[in-house]
Amino acid sequence: MSDELRDQLARAATATEAAIDRLLTATPQAGETERPPRLLSAMRYAALGPGKRIRPFLVIETANLFGATSAAVITTAAALECVHAYSLVHDDLPAMDDDDLRRGRPTVHKAYDEATAILAGDGLLTLAFDALAALDAPADTRVALIGGLARAAGIGGMVGGQALDLDTDAPAEAQAIRTMQAMKTGALIRYAVEAGAILGAASQADRARLAMFGARIGEAFQIADDLIDATGTVETAGKRTAKDAALGKRTVVALVGIDAARERLAFLVRQARDTLAPFGDRAAPLAAMATFIATREA
Amino acid sequence: MSDELRDQLARAATATEAAIDRLLTATPQAGETERPPRLLSAMRYAALGPGKRIRPFLVIETANLFGATSAAVITTAAALECVHAYSLVHDDLPAMDDDDLRRGRPTVHKAYDEATAILAGDGLLTLAFDALAALDAPADTRVALIGGLARAAGIGGMVGGQALDLDTDAPAEAQAIRTMQAMKTGALIRYAVEAGAILGAASQADRARLAMFGARIGEAFQIADDLIDATGTVETAGKRTAKDAALGKRTVVALVGIDAARERLAFLVRQARDTLAPFGDRAAPLAAMATFIATREA
Repeated sequence: MSDELRDQLARAATATEAAIDRLLTATPQAGETERPPRLLSAMRYAALGPGKRIRPFLVIETANLFGATSAAVITTAAALECVHAYSLVHDDLPAMDDDDLRRGRPTVHKAYDEATAILAGDGLLTLAFDALAALDAPADTRVALIGGLARAAGIGGMVGGQALDLDTDAPAEAQAIRTMQAMKTGALIRYAVEAGAILGAASQADRARLAMFGARIGEAFQIADDLIDATGTVETAGKRTAKDAALGKRTVVALVGIDAARERLAFLVRQARDTLAPFGDRAAPLAAMATFIATREA
Repeated sequence: MSDELRDQLARAATATEAAIDRLLTATPQAGETERPPRLLSAMRYAALGPGKRIRPFLVIETANLFGATSAAVITTAAALECVHAYSLVHDDLPAMDDDDLRRGRPTVHKAYDEATAILAGDGLLTLAFDALAALDAPADTRVALIGGLARAAGIGGMVGGQALDLDTDAPAEAQAIRTMQAMKTGALIRYAVEAGAILGAASQADRARLAMFGARIGEAFQIADDLIDATGTVETAGKRTAKDAALGKRTVVALVGIDAARERLAFLVRQARDTLAPFGDRAAPLAAMATFIATREA
Protein backbone atom coordinates (compact mmCIF):
# COMPACT_ATOMS: atom_id res chain seq x y z
CA MET A 1 0.00 0.00 0.00
CA SER A 2 1.34 3.46 -0.89
CA ASP A 3 1.83 5.97 1.91
CA GLU A 4 -0.82 8.13 0.27
CA LEU A 5 -3.45 5.38 0.26
CA ARG A 6 -2.48 4.44 3.80
CA ASP A 7 -3.11 8.03 4.93
CA GLN A 8 -6.41 8.30 3.05
CA LEU A 9 -7.58 4.97 4.42
CA ALA A 10 -6.58 5.96 7.95
CA ARG A 11 -8.46 9.26 7.67
CA ALA A 12 -11.59 7.50 6.40
CA ALA A 13 -11.31 4.89 9.16
CA THR A 14 -10.89 7.52 11.90
CA ALA A 15 -13.91 9.50 10.72
CA THR A 16 -16.02 6.37 10.34
CA GLU A 17 -15.09 5.02 13.76
CA ALA A 18 -15.98 8.34 15.38
CA ALA A 19 -19.39 8.15 13.69
CA ILE A 20 -19.92 4.53 14.80
CA ASP A 21 -18.91 5.58 18.31
CA ARG A 22 -21.60 8.27 18.23
CA LEU A 23 -24.24 5.85 16.90
CA LEU A 24 -23.34 3.38 19.64
CA THR A 25 -23.55 5.90 22.48
CA ALA A 26 -24.78 4.61 25.83
CA THR A 27 -27.33 7.45 25.93
CA PRO A 28 -30.82 6.31 24.93
CA GLN A 29 -32.09 8.19 21.88
CA ALA A 30 -35.61 9.60 21.34
CA GLY A 31 -38.12 6.75 21.60
CA GLU A 32 -35.70 4.48 23.47
CA THR A 33 -35.96 3.53 27.14
CA GLU A 34 -32.48 2.19 27.74
CA ARG A 35 -29.58 0.58 25.93
CA PRO A 36 -28.61 -2.62 27.76
CA PRO A 37 -24.90 -2.25 28.61
CA ARG A 38 -23.78 -5.80 27.80
CA LEU A 39 -25.49 -5.81 24.42
CA LEU A 40 -24.14 -2.35 23.65
CA SER A 41 -20.67 -3.53 24.61
CA ALA A 42 -20.92 -6.50 22.24
CA MET A 43 -22.11 -4.24 19.41
CA ARG A 44 -19.18 -1.89 20.02
CA TYR A 45 -16.75 -4.83 20.19
CA ALA A 46 -18.03 -6.01 16.81
CA ALA A 47 -18.22 -2.68 15.01
CA LEU A 48 -15.23 -0.86 16.52
CA GLY A 49 -12.70 -3.69 16.61
CA PRO A 50 -9.73 -3.73 14.27
CA GLY A 51 -10.67 -3.49 10.61
CA LYS A 52 -9.45 -1.82 7.46
CA ARG A 53 -12.77 0.00 6.83
CA ILE A 54 -12.55 -0.63 3.09
CA ARG A 55 -16.31 -0.19 2.56
CA PRO A 56 -16.43 3.16 4.39
CA PHE A 57 -13.41 4.29 2.35
CA LEU A 58 -15.29 3.43 -0.86
CA VAL A 59 -18.37 5.41 0.25
CA ILE A 60 -16.30 8.41 1.24
CA GLU A 61 -13.97 8.47 -1.79
CA THR A 62 -16.80 7.89 -4.27
CA ALA A 63 -18.85 10.72 -2.75
CA ASN A 64 -15.69 12.81 -2.82
CA LEU A 65 -15.46 12.34 -6.61
CA PHE A 66 -18.49 14.63 -6.75
CA GLY A 67 -17.37 16.99 -4.02
CA ALA A 68 -19.70 15.52 -1.39
CA THR A 69 -17.98 15.60 1.99
CA SER A 70 -20.87 16.17 4.41
CA ALA A 71 -21.48 14.49 7.76
CA ALA A 72 -24.15 12.43 5.96
CA VAL A 73 -21.37 10.80 3.89
CA ILE A 74 -19.49 9.73 7.01
CA THR A 75 -22.65 8.48 8.75
CA THR A 76 -23.56 6.43 5.68
CA ALA A 77 -20.06 4.93 5.76
CA ALA A 78 -20.57 4.12 9.45
CA ALA A 79 -23.97 2.53 8.80
CA LEU A 80 -22.51 0.34 6.08
CA GLU A 81 -19.67 -0.74 8.36
CA CYS A 82 -22.27 -1.71 10.99
CA VAL A 83 -23.95 -3.97 8.41
CA HIS A 84 -20.59 -5.49 7.49
CA ALA A 85 -19.81 -6.05 11.18
CA TYR A 86 -23.21 -7.69 11.78
CA SER A 87 -22.61 -10.07 8.88
CA LEU A 88 -19.26 -11.14 10.35
CA VAL A 89 -20.80 -11.72 13.80
CA HIS A 90 -23.54 -13.95 12.41
CA ASP A 91 -21.24 -15.73 9.92
CA ASP A 92 -18.85 -16.61 12.76
CA LEU A 93 -21.59 -18.30 14.87
CA PRO A 94 -21.22 -22.01 15.66
CA ALA A 95 -24.22 -22.85 13.44
CA MET A 96 -22.61 -21.01 10.52
CA ASP A 97 -18.83 -20.90 9.88
CA ASP A 98 -18.01 -21.64 13.55
CA ASP A 99 -15.02 -19.32 13.85
CA ASP A 100 -13.31 -18.53 17.15
CA LEU A 101 -10.98 -15.88 15.80
CA ARG A 102 -11.62 -12.74 13.77
CA ARG A 103 -9.07 -10.01 13.08
CA GLY A 104 -6.82 -11.62 15.68
CA ARG A 105 -9.41 -11.43 18.49
CA PRO A 106 -12.03 -13.84 19.87
CA THR A 107 -15.24 -13.66 17.83
CA VAL A 108 -18.26 -12.05 19.52
CA HIS A 109 -19.88 -15.32 20.61
CA LYS A 110 -16.55 -16.32 22.19
CA ALA A 111 -15.93 -12.96 23.88
CA TYR A 112 -19.57 -12.72 25.05
CA ASP A 113 -21.99 -15.59 24.39
CA GLU A 114 -23.99 -16.93 21.50
CA ALA A 115 -27.31 -15.26 22.37
CA THR A 116 -25.58 -11.91 22.76
CA ALA A 117 -23.81 -12.40 19.43
CA ILE A 118 -27.09 -13.08 17.63
CA LEU A 119 -28.70 -10.01 19.21
CA ALA A 120 -25.64 -7.81 18.65
CA GLY A 121 -25.80 -8.67 14.94
CA ASP A 122 -29.53 -7.97 14.84
CA GLY A 123 -28.95 -4.69 16.66
CA LEU A 124 -26.18 -3.55 14.30
CA LEU A 125 -28.26 -4.29 11.21
CA THR A 126 -31.19 -2.38 12.66
CA LEU A 127 -28.99 0.51 13.75
CA ALA A 128 -27.74 0.97 10.20
CA PHE A 129 -31.27 1.71 8.98
CA ASP A 130 -31.91 3.94 12.00
CA ALA A 131 -28.79 5.96 11.13
CA LEU A 132 -29.69 6.31 7.46
CA ALA A 133 -33.27 7.35 8.26
CA ALA A 134 -31.89 10.09 10.55
CA LEU A 135 -29.29 11.42 8.07
CA ASP A 136 -29.05 15.15 7.52
CA ALA A 137 -29.96 14.76 3.83
CA PRO A 138 -33.08 15.13 1.64
CA ALA A 139 -35.71 12.45 2.29
CA ASP A 140 -35.41 11.02 -1.23
CA THR A 141 -31.64 10.63 -0.79
CA ARG A 142 -32.23 8.80 2.48
CA VAL A 143 -34.82 6.52 0.90
CA ALA A 144 -32.45 5.70 -1.98
CA LEU A 145 -29.64 4.87 0.46
CA ILE A 146 -31.94 2.71 2.61
CA GLY A 147 -33.52 0.86 -0.31
CA GLY A 148 -30.13 0.17 -1.88
CA LEU A 149 -28.67 -1.12 1.38
CA ALA A 150 -31.63 -3.40 2.07
CA ARG A 151 -31.49 -4.81 -1.46
CA ALA A 152 -27.72 -5.38 -1.23
CA ALA A 153 -27.86 -6.96 2.23
CA GLY A 154 -31.01 -9.11 1.89
CA ILE A 155 -32.09 -12.42 0.43
CA GLY A 156 -31.07 -11.41 -3.10
CA GLY A 157 -27.73 -10.10 -1.85
CA MET A 158 -25.50 -10.76 1.15
CA VAL A 159 -27.82 -12.94 3.24
CA GLY A 160 -28.75 -15.03 0.20
CA GLY A 161 -25.07 -15.38 -0.72
CA GLN A 162 -24.25 -16.67 2.75
CA ALA A 163 -27.09 -19.21 2.42
CA LEU A 164 -25.66 -20.36 -0.93
CA ASP A 165 -22.17 -20.57 0.57
CA LEU A 166 -23.42 -22.86 3.34
CA ASP A 167 -25.18 -25.14 0.84
CA THR A 168 -22.63 -27.91 0.32
CA ASP A 169 -24.90 -29.56 -2.26
CA ALA A 170 -24.82 -26.52 -4.56
CA PRO A 171 -23.07 -26.95 -7.94
CA ALA A 172 -19.30 -26.29 -7.97
CA GLU A 173 -19.44 -24.57 -11.35
CA ALA A 174 -17.79 -21.29 -12.21
CA GLN A 175 -21.07 -19.43 -12.78
CA ALA A 176 -22.67 -20.69 -9.55
CA ILE A 177 -19.57 -19.78 -7.55
CA ARG A 178 -19.42 -16.36 -9.14
CA THR A 179 -23.10 -15.72 -8.35
CA MET A 180 -22.68 -16.84 -4.76
CA GLN A 181 -19.64 -14.61 -4.29
CA ALA A 182 -21.24 -11.65 -6.05
CA MET A 183 -24.07 -11.89 -3.53
CA LYS A 184 -22.16 -12.80 -0.38
CA THR A 185 -19.31 -10.30 -0.67
CA GLY A 186 -19.81 -8.34 -3.86
CA ALA A 187 -23.22 -6.83 -3.11
CA LEU A 188 -22.09 -4.81 -0.11
CA ILE A 189 -18.94 -3.58 -1.86
CA ARG A 190 -20.98 -2.55 -4.89
CA TYR A 191 -23.37 -0.78 -2.53
CA ALA A 192 -20.50 1.17 -0.95
CA VAL A 193 -19.72 2.70 -4.33
CA GLU A 194 -23.42 3.12 -5.17
CA ALA A 195 -24.02 4.93 -1.87
CA GLY A 196 -21.18 7.33 -2.60
CA ALA A 197 -22.71 8.04 -6.01
CA ILE A 198 -26.15 8.67 -4.45
CA LEU A 199 -24.65 11.02 -1.87
CA GLY A 200 -22.73 12.78 -4.65
CA ALA A 201 -25.88 13.11 -6.76
CA ALA A 202 -23.97 11.50 -9.64
CA SER A 203 -25.41 11.47 -13.16
CA GLN A 204 -26.92 8.23 -14.47
CA ALA A 205 -23.88 7.71 -16.69
CA ASP A 206 -21.49 8.10 -13.77
CA ARG A 207 -23.63 5.84 -11.61
CA ALA A 208 -23.51 3.13 -14.28
CA ARG A 209 -19.71 3.49 -14.54
CA LEU A 210 -19.30 3.29 -10.80
CA ALA A 211 -21.65 0.30 -10.55
CA MET A 212 -19.33 -1.50 -12.98
CA PHE A 213 -16.31 -0.49 -10.90
CA GLY A 214 -18.05 -1.74 -7.76
CA ALA A 215 -18.94 -5.09 -9.33
CA ARG A 216 -15.34 -5.64 -10.46
CA ILE A 217 -13.69 -4.79 -7.18
CA GLY A 218 -16.37 -6.82 -5.40
CA GLU A 219 -15.40 -9.92 -7.36
CA ALA A 220 -11.71 -9.11 -6.92
CA PHE A 221 -12.20 -8.76 -3.18
CA GLN A 222 -13.63 -12.25 -2.83
CA ILE A 223 -10.98 -13.91 -5.00
CA ALA A 224 -8.30 -12.17 -2.95
CA ASP A 225 -10.03 -13.44 0.21
CA ASP A 226 -10.02 -16.98 -1.14
CA LEU A 227 -6.33 -16.67 -2.04
CA ILE A 228 -5.56 -15.44 1.49
CA ASP A 229 -7.35 -18.49 2.85
CA ALA A 230 -5.49 -20.82 0.47
CA THR A 231 -2.00 -19.35 0.79
CA GLY A 232 -1.89 -17.21 3.94
CA THR A 233 -1.09 -18.02 7.54
CA VAL A 234 -3.04 -17.19 10.67
CA GLU A 235 -0.26 -14.68 11.54
CA THR A 236 -0.57 -12.70 8.30
CA ALA A 237 -4.34 -13.12 7.89
CA GLY A 238 -5.43 -12.57 11.52
CA LYS A 239 -7.87 -15.45 11.18
CA ARG A 240 -7.82 -19.18 10.69
CA THR A 241 -6.76 -20.05 7.10
CA ALA A 242 -6.92 -23.15 4.88
CA LYS A 243 -10.46 -23.66 6.10
CA ASP A 244 -12.21 -23.39 2.72
CA ALA A 245 -10.49 -26.56 1.52
CA ALA A 246 -11.04 -28.30 4.86
CA LEU A 247 -14.76 -27.47 4.72
CA GLY A 248 -15.05 -28.33 1.02
CA LYS A 249 -16.14 -24.75 0.27
CA ARG A 250 -16.72 -23.77 -3.32
CA THR A 251 -14.23 -21.04 -4.27
CA VAL A 252 -12.66 -19.83 -7.49
CA VAL A 253 -9.30 -21.02 -6.13
CA ALA A 254 -10.67 -24.54 -5.59
CA LEU A 255 -12.15 -24.55 -9.09
CA VAL A 256 -9.30 -23.15 -11.21
CA GLY A 257 -6.26 -23.27 -8.94
CA ILE A 258 -4.11 -20.56 -7.41
CA ASP A 259 -2.35 -19.36 -10.56
CA ALA A 260 -5.49 -18.95 -12.65
CA ALA A 261 -7.23 -17.22 -9.72
CA ARG A 262 -4.33 -14.76 -9.52
CA GLU A 263 -4.64 -14.08 -13.25
CA ARG A 264 -8.36 -13.44 -12.96
CA LEU A 265 -7.69 -11.12 -10.03
CA ALA A 266 -5.15 -9.09 -12.00
CA PHE A 267 -7.58 -8.90 -14.94
CA LEU A 268 -10.40 -7.64 -12.71
CA VAL A 269 -8.22 -4.94 -11.18
CA ARG A 270 -7.14 -3.69 -14.63
CA GLN A 271 -10.78 -3.63 -15.72
CA ALA A 272 -11.85 -1.85 -12.56
CA ARG A 273 -9.18 0.81 -12.97
CA ASP A 274 -10.10 1.29 -16.63
CA THR A 275 -13.70 2.01 -15.59
CA LEU A 276 -12.44 4.99 -13.60
CA ALA A 277 -10.62 6.61 -16.54
CA PRO A 278 -13.35 9.22 -17.26
CA PHE A 279 -12.93 10.61 -13.74
CA GLY A 280 -9.22 11.34 -14.27
CA ASP A 281 -6.92 12.01 -11.33
CA ARG A 282 -9.78 12.62 -8.94
CA ALA A 283 -10.36 8.86 -8.93
CA ALA A 284 -6.76 8.07 -7.92
CA PRO A 285 -7.78 6.96 -4.39
CA LEU A 286 -10.39 4.55 -5.78
CA ALA A 287 -7.90 3.20 -8.33
CA ALA A 288 -5.30 2.68 -5.61
CA MET A 289 -7.89 0.86 -3.51
CA ALA A 290 -8.69 -1.50 -6.39
CA THR A 291 -5.03 -2.49 -6.51
CA PHE A 292 -4.82 -2.81 -2.73
CA ILE A 293 -7.91 -5.02 -2.57
CA ALA A 294 -6.20 -7.50 -4.88
CA THR A 295 -2.79 -7.51 -3.25
CA ARG A 296 -3.61 -7.36 0.46
CA GLU A 297 -2.54 -10.23 2.72
CA ALA A 298 -5.32 -9.93 5.31
CA MET B 1 -63.85 -12.26 20.28
CA SER B 2 -66.93 -10.69 18.67
CA ASP B 3 -67.89 -11.82 15.17
CA GLU B 4 -67.25 -8.30 13.97
CA LEU B 5 -63.69 -8.21 15.32
CA ARG B 6 -63.10 -11.71 13.99
CA ASP B 7 -64.12 -10.56 10.49
CA GLN B 8 -62.04 -7.38 10.66
CA LEU B 9 -59.02 -9.31 11.90
CA ALA B 10 -59.46 -11.94 9.18
CA ARG B 11 -59.66 -9.25 6.48
CA ALA B 12 -56.53 -7.54 7.77
CA ALA B 13 -54.73 -10.90 7.97
CA THR B 14 -55.71 -11.89 4.43
CA ALA B 15 -54.57 -8.57 2.96
CA THR B 16 -51.32 -8.67 4.95
CA GLU B 17 -50.52 -12.25 3.97
CA ALA B 18 -51.09 -11.43 0.31
CA ALA B 19 -48.63 -8.55 0.65
CA ILE B 20 -46.06 -10.75 2.43
CA ASP B 21 -46.51 -13.34 -0.31
CA ARG B 22 -45.69 -10.67 -2.90
CA LEU B 23 -42.64 -9.47 -0.96
CA LEU B 24 -41.42 -13.06 -0.70
CA THR B 25 -41.81 -13.85 -4.38
CA ALA B 26 -39.29 -16.24 -5.92
CA THR B 27 -38.63 -13.71 -8.69
CA PRO B 28 -35.44 -11.73 -8.11
CA GLN B 29 -36.12 -8.00 -7.82
CA ALA B 30 -34.08 -5.17 -9.39
CA GLY B 31 -30.51 -5.38 -8.12
CA GLU B 32 -30.86 -9.01 -7.04
CA THR B 33 -29.23 -11.98 -8.79
CA GLU B 34 -31.25 -14.80 -7.33
CA ARG B 35 -33.28 -15.72 -4.26
CA PRO B 36 -31.96 -19.03 -2.88
CA PRO B 37 -34.99 -21.36 -2.74
CA ARG B 38 -34.31 -22.97 0.64
CA LEU B 39 -33.76 -19.65 2.37
CA LEU B 40 -36.83 -18.19 0.70
CA SER B 41 -38.83 -21.20 1.82
CA ALA B 42 -37.71 -20.72 5.43
CA MET B 43 -38.60 -17.02 5.30
CA ARG B 44 -42.06 -17.88 3.94
CA TYR B 45 -42.50 -20.59 6.58
CA ALA B 46 -41.69 -18.03 9.28
CA ALA B 47 -43.71 -15.09 7.97
CA LEU B 48 -46.70 -16.87 6.44
CA GLY B 49 -47.30 -19.54 9.08
CA PRO B 50 -50.33 -19.36 11.35
CA GLY B 51 -50.59 -16.13 13.29
CA LYS B 52 -53.24 -13.68 14.39
CA ARG B 53 -51.60 -10.70 12.63
CA ILE B 54 -52.42 -8.40 15.53
CA ARG B 55 -49.70 -5.89 14.61
CA PRO B 56 -50.86 -5.60 10.97
CA PHE B 57 -54.43 -5.14 12.22
CA LEU B 58 -53.24 -2.27 14.42
CA VAL B 59 -51.45 -0.58 11.50
CA ILE B 60 -54.44 -0.97 9.21
CA GLU B 61 -57.13 0.07 11.69
CA THR B 62 -55.14 3.04 12.98
CA ALA B 63 -54.53 4.29 9.43
CA ASN B 64 -58.22 3.69 8.76
CA LEU B 65 -59.12 6.11 11.58
CA PHE B 66 -57.83 8.82 9.25
CA GLY B 67 -59.28 7.36 6.08
CA ALA B 68 -55.95 5.96 4.88
CA THR B 69 -56.53 2.64 3.09
CA SER B 70 -53.83 2.64 0.39
CA ALA B 71 -51.63 -0.26 -0.68
CA ALA B 72 -48.86 1.46 1.28
CA VAL B 73 -50.81 0.79 4.49
CA ILE B 74 -51.02 -2.93 3.74
CA THR B 75 -47.35 -3.15 2.74
CA THR B 76 -46.35 -1.40 5.96
CA ALA B 77 -48.42 -3.93 7.89
CA ALA B 78 -46.65 -6.73 5.99
CA ALA B 79 -43.22 -5.25 6.68
CA LEU B 80 -44.00 -5.04 10.39
CA GLU B 81 -45.20 -8.65 10.43
CA CYS B 82 -41.89 -9.66 8.81
CA VAL B 83 -40.02 -7.97 11.67
CA HIS B 84 -42.24 -9.72 14.21
CA ALA B 85 -41.66 -13.06 12.45
CA TYR B 86 -37.87 -12.51 12.41
CA SER B 87 -37.89 -11.81 16.13
CA LEU B 88 -39.71 -15.08 16.83
CA VAL B 89 -37.29 -17.07 14.64
CA HIS B 90 -34.26 -15.68 16.45
CA ASP B 91 -35.86 -15.87 19.92
CA ASP B 92 -36.65 -19.56 19.36
CA LEU B 93 -33.01 -20.47 18.54
CA PRO B 94 -31.22 -22.94 20.82
CA ALA B 95 -28.89 -20.20 22.09
CA MET B 96 -31.89 -18.04 23.03
CA ASP B 97 -35.21 -19.45 24.32
CA ASP B 98 -34.57 -22.87 22.72
CA ASP B 99 -38.14 -23.55 21.62
CA ASP B 100 -39.09 -26.45 19.35
CA LEU B 101 -42.71 -25.44 18.89
CA ARG B 102 -44.29 -22.20 17.73
CA ARG B 103 -47.96 -21.75 16.84
CA GLY B 104 -48.34 -25.52 16.93
CA ARG B 105 -45.58 -26.16 14.34
CA PRO B 106 -41.86 -26.92 14.55
CA THR B 107 -39.84 -23.72 14.89
CA VAL B 108 -37.75 -22.67 11.88
CA HIS B 109 -34.47 -24.12 13.15
CA LYS B 110 -36.28 -27.45 13.70
CA ALA B 111 -38.10 -27.44 10.34
CA TYR B 112 -34.92 -26.31 8.50
CA ASP B 113 -31.64 -25.92 10.38
CA GLU B 114 -30.03 -23.43 12.69
CA ALA B 115 -27.96 -21.59 10.09
CA THR B 116 -30.99 -21.21 7.84
CA ALA B 117 -33.04 -19.92 10.77
CA ILE B 118 -30.45 -17.26 11.59
CA LEU B 119 -30.30 -16.17 7.94
CA ALA B 120 -34.08 -16.31 7.49
CA GLY B 121 -34.45 -13.94 10.43
CA ASP B 122 -31.76 -11.64 9.04
CA GLY B 123 -33.46 -11.74 5.64
CA LEU B 124 -36.90 -10.91 7.03
CA LEU B 125 -35.60 -7.95 9.02
CA THR B 126 -33.79 -6.62 5.96
CA LEU B 127 -36.81 -7.22 3.71
CA ALA B 128 -38.97 -5.06 5.96
CA PHE B 129 -36.76 -2.04 5.32
CA ASP B 130 -36.61 -2.87 1.61
CA ALA B 131 -40.42 -2.90 1.49
CA LEU B 132 -40.78 0.39 3.36
CA ALA B 133 -38.17 2.11 1.18
CA ALA B 134 -40.12 1.02 -1.92
CA LEU B 135 -43.57 2.10 -0.64
CA ASP B 136 -45.81 4.11 -2.93
CA ALA B 137 -45.81 7.06 -0.51
CA PRO B 138 -43.99 10.40 -0.19
CA ALA B 139 -40.30 10.04 0.67
CA ASP B 140 -40.70 11.78 4.03
CA THR B 141 -43.49 9.36 5.00
CA ARG B 142 -41.24 6.43 4.10
CA VAL B 143 -38.35 7.85 6.09
CA ALA B 144 -40.61 8.37 9.13
CA LEU B 145 -41.88 4.78 8.90
CA ILE B 146 -38.34 3.40 8.49
CA GLY B 147 -36.84 5.47 11.30
CA GLY B 148 -39.68 4.57 13.66
CA LEU B 149 -39.38 0.86 12.88
CA ALA B 150 -35.61 0.83 13.34
CA ARG B 151 -35.91 2.66 16.67
CA ALA B 152 -38.65 0.30 17.90
CA ALA B 153 -36.84 -2.86 16.80
CA GLY B 154 -33.26 -1.99 17.78
CA ILE B 155 -31.03 -1.91 20.85
CA GLY B 156 -33.29 0.59 22.63
CA GLY B 157 -36.39 -1.42 21.72
CA MET B 158 -37.13 -5.03 20.86
CA VAL B 159 -33.57 -6.36 20.50
CA GLY B 160 -32.52 -4.65 23.72
CA GLY B 161 -35.60 -6.03 25.50
CA GLN B 162 -34.73 -9.56 24.44
CA ALA B 163 -31.19 -9.03 25.77
CA LEU B 164 -32.61 -7.85 29.11
CA ASP B 165 -35.00 -10.82 29.19
CA LEU B 166 -32.09 -13.25 28.75
CA ASP B 167 -30.13 -11.59 31.56
CA THR B 168 -30.94 -13.78 34.56
CA ASP B 169 -28.88 -11.50 36.82
CA ALA B 170 -31.08 -8.49 36.12
CA PRO B 171 -33.13 -7.08 39.03
CA ALA B 172 -36.59 -8.68 39.52
CA GLU B 173 -38.19 -5.38 40.41
CA ALA B 174 -41.45 -4.10 38.99
CA GLN B 175 -39.84 -1.16 37.18
CA ALA B 176 -37.07 -3.26 35.62
CA ILE B 177 -39.58 -5.88 34.47
CA ARG B 178 -41.85 -3.23 33.03
CA THR B 179 -38.97 -1.62 31.14
CA MET B 180 -37.83 -4.97 29.77
CA GLN B 181 -41.34 -5.84 28.61
CA ALA B 182 -41.99 -2.38 27.18
CA MET B 183 -38.89 -2.88 25.03
CA LYS B 184 -39.21 -6.56 24.17
CA THR B 185 -42.89 -6.65 23.25
CA GLY B 186 -44.31 -3.18 23.73
CA ALA B 187 -42.08 -1.29 21.30
CA LEU B 188 -43.28 -3.11 18.19
CA ILE B 189 -46.94 -2.89 19.21
CA ARG B 190 -46.55 0.82 19.91
CA TYR B 191 -44.89 1.15 16.51
CA ALA B 192 -47.85 -0.56 14.79
CA VAL B 193 -50.13 2.20 16.04
CA GLU B 194 -47.50 4.88 15.33
CA ALA B 195 -47.11 3.62 11.75
CA GLY B 196 -50.86 3.81 11.21
CA ALA B 197 -50.82 7.39 12.49
CA ILE B 198 -47.93 8.30 10.17
CA LEU B 199 -49.70 6.76 7.18
CA GLY B 200 -52.87 8.61 8.16
CA ALA B 201 -50.99 11.91 8.48
CA ALA B 202 -52.47 12.27 11.99
CA SER B 203 -52.17 15.54 13.89
CA GLN B 204 -49.60 15.80 16.69
CA ALA B 205 -52.41 15.60 19.27
CA ASP B 206 -53.83 12.44 17.71
CA ARG B 207 -50.36 10.92 17.43
CA ALA B 208 -49.77 11.55 21.13
CA ARG B 209 -53.12 9.96 22.01
CA LEU B 210 -52.40 6.95 19.86
CA ALA B 211 -48.90 6.61 21.28
CA MET B 212 -50.50 6.35 24.74
CA PHE B 213 -52.96 3.76 23.44
CA GLY B 214 -50.09 1.79 21.89
CA ALA B 215 -48.07 1.86 25.10
CA ARG B 216 -51.01 0.58 27.14
CA ILE B 217 -51.98 -2.27 24.84
CA GLY B 218 -48.29 -3.12 24.50
CA GLU B 219 -48.00 -3.60 28.26
CA ALA B 220 -51.32 -5.45 28.33
CA PHE B 221 -50.16 -7.76 25.56
CA GLN B 222 -47.09 -8.88 27.49
CA ILE B 223 -48.97 -9.42 30.76
CA ALA B 224 -51.56 -11.48 28.86
CA ASP B 225 -48.67 -13.47 27.34
CA ASP B 226 -47.22 -14.11 30.77
CA LEU B 227 -50.64 -15.22 32.06
CA ILE B 228 -50.99 -17.61 29.11
CA ASP B 229 -47.62 -19.10 30.01
CA ALA B 230 -48.56 -19.38 33.69
CA THR B 231 -52.09 -20.72 33.31
CA GLY B 232 -52.47 -22.09 29.76
CA THR B 233 -51.79 -25.48 28.24
CA VAL B 234 -49.84 -26.38 25.13
CA GLU B 235 -53.18 -27.23 23.47
CA THR B 236 -54.77 -23.83 24.04
CA ALA B 237 -51.57 -21.80 23.64
CA GLY B 238 -50.03 -23.62 20.65
CA LYS B 239 -46.63 -23.45 22.31
CA ARG B 240 -44.90 -24.84 25.36
CA THR B 241 -46.22 -23.18 28.56
CA ALA B 242 -45.08 -22.91 32.19
CA LYS B 243 -41.59 -22.21 30.90
CA ASP B 244 -41.17 -18.74 32.42
CA ALA B 245 -41.25 -20.20 35.93
CA ALA B 246 -39.06 -23.14 34.89
CA LEU B 247 -36.47 -20.76 33.44
CA GLY B 248 -36.73 -18.32 36.36
CA LYS B 249 -37.85 -15.58 33.96
CA ARG B 250 -38.81 -12.24 35.39
CA THR B 251 -42.47 -11.55 34.65
CA VAL B 252 -45.20 -9.45 36.22
CA VAL B 253 -46.99 -12.72 37.09
CA ALA B 254 -43.92 -14.01 38.93
CA LEU B 255 -43.60 -10.72 40.78
CA VAL B 256 -47.18 -9.98 41.87
CA GLY B 257 -49.05 -13.25 41.28
CA ILE B 258 -51.82 -14.22 38.90
CA ASP B 259 -54.66 -12.27 40.49
CA ALA B 260 -52.82 -8.98 40.72
CA ALA B 261 -51.55 -9.42 37.15
CA ARG B 262 -55.13 -9.91 35.96
CA GLU B 263 -56.16 -6.74 37.78
CA ARG B 264 -53.35 -4.76 36.18
CA LEU B 265 -54.36 -6.14 32.80
CA ALA B 266 -58.00 -5.08 33.23
CA PHE B 267 -56.84 -1.63 34.35
CA LEU B 268 -54.62 -1.21 31.29
CA VAL B 269 -57.40 -2.20 28.90
CA ARG B 270 -59.79 0.33 30.49
CA GLN B 271 -57.12 3.00 30.22
CA ALA B 272 -56.35 2.07 26.62
CA ARG B 273 -60.01 2.22 25.62
CA ASP B 274 -60.41 5.58 27.39
CA THR B 275 -57.57 6.98 25.27
CA LEU B 276 -59.62 6.27 22.17
CA ALA B 277 -62.70 8.22 23.34
CA PRO B 278 -61.97 11.35 21.23
CA PHE B 279 -62.13 9.22 18.06
CA GLY B 280 -65.69 8.05 18.78
CA ASP B 281 -67.17 5.04 17.04
CA ARG B 282 -64.53 5.04 14.32
CA ALA B 283 -62.14 3.60 16.91
CA ALA B 284 -64.42 0.65 17.75
CA PRO B 285 -62.12 -1.91 16.02
CA LEU B 286 -59.10 -0.67 18.00
CA ALA B 287 -61.09 -0.71 21.25
CA ALA B 288 -62.29 -4.25 20.56
CA MET B 289 -58.68 -5.28 19.86
CA ALA B 290 -57.57 -3.86 23.22
CA THR B 291 -60.09 -6.11 24.95
CA PHE B 292 -59.14 -9.11 22.82
CA ILE B 293 -55.43 -8.66 23.54
CA ALA B 294 -56.15 -8.98 27.25
CA THR B 295 -58.51 -11.93 27.08
CA ARG B 296 -56.96 -14.15 24.39
CA GLU B 297 -55.80 -17.64 25.32
CA ALA B 298 -53.04 -17.96 22.72
